Amino acid sequence: MRCTAGVHRILLREVVIDAPSSTFAATRDFWAAALGAEAESVAEFPEFTTLRKAAALSWVGLQEVRNADARYHLDIETDDVKAEVARLTVLGAVKVADGRSWVVMQDPSGHLFDVVPHESPWFAERSIEVS
Amino acid sequence: MRCTAGVHRILLREVVIDAPSSTFAATRDFWAAALGAEAESVAEFPEFTTLRKAAALSWVGLQEVRNADARYHLDIETDDVKAEVARLTVLGAVKVADGRSWVVMQDPSGHLFDVVPHESPWFAERSIEVS
Repeated sequence: MRCTAGVHRILLREVVIDAPSSTFAATRDFWAAALGAEAESVAEFPEFTTLRKAAALSWVGLQEVRNADARYHLDIETDDVKAEVARLTVLGAVKVADGRSWVVMQDPSGHLFDVVPHESPWFAERSIEVS
Repeated sequence: MRCTAGVHRILLREVVIDAPSSTFAATRDFWAAALGAEAESVAEFPEFTTLRKAAALSWVGLQEVRNADARYHLDIETDDVKAEVARLTVLGAVKVADGRSWVVMQDPSGHLFDVVPHESPWFAERSIEVS
């Protein structure tokens, strides 16, 4: 079986720190101080917080996940979400849910990650072509 | 209370995909293919695998964690592990265990991360000074 959705580009750009509401503020403040960053709510998606200017090789964000357990997830950005979900499914991932502009998936061990539309300034330079 | 261990430098350099033995090989092969990378065992620490040339802004590794649950953890590299552990403790983290050259900690929500000696080629350029 091959992915037939054509050539597209992908880049693992971000780690997201998912924290329940009860400890979200403490966790946000901890990571902002730990990484010398400014915590900034994402206007479009208020459950998300960006850590600007973090001392980190990748983007780092936080997500308030209400009563869910604390966990991390990863964001793979792409110029073709549908094709990337199809490719990763062939490789062994499973789709868990549709987000607003993204798709939530799990790897063969159950690690959560999202396939998201590209928006990082490094996408053109650092992404790779896949098919 | 202030950290009195002096000035040192830190950088969040890596995400590590921790997978139990039962699904480790499938998870390693999935991420290597997903990110266009070469999976390479770390000679010094055989439970670790590096994903070389991954399409990722940060380093990406895997760790075989035997019967433990699948999870991610983060690695913060530093030129002074002891001072960084002290600083992060003041900020609200808790030490969980001593590794060989690293220290395992948890943030206020329980997310695992390690404080590790610096070795990435970007440490001098991308790390920040903390105290």
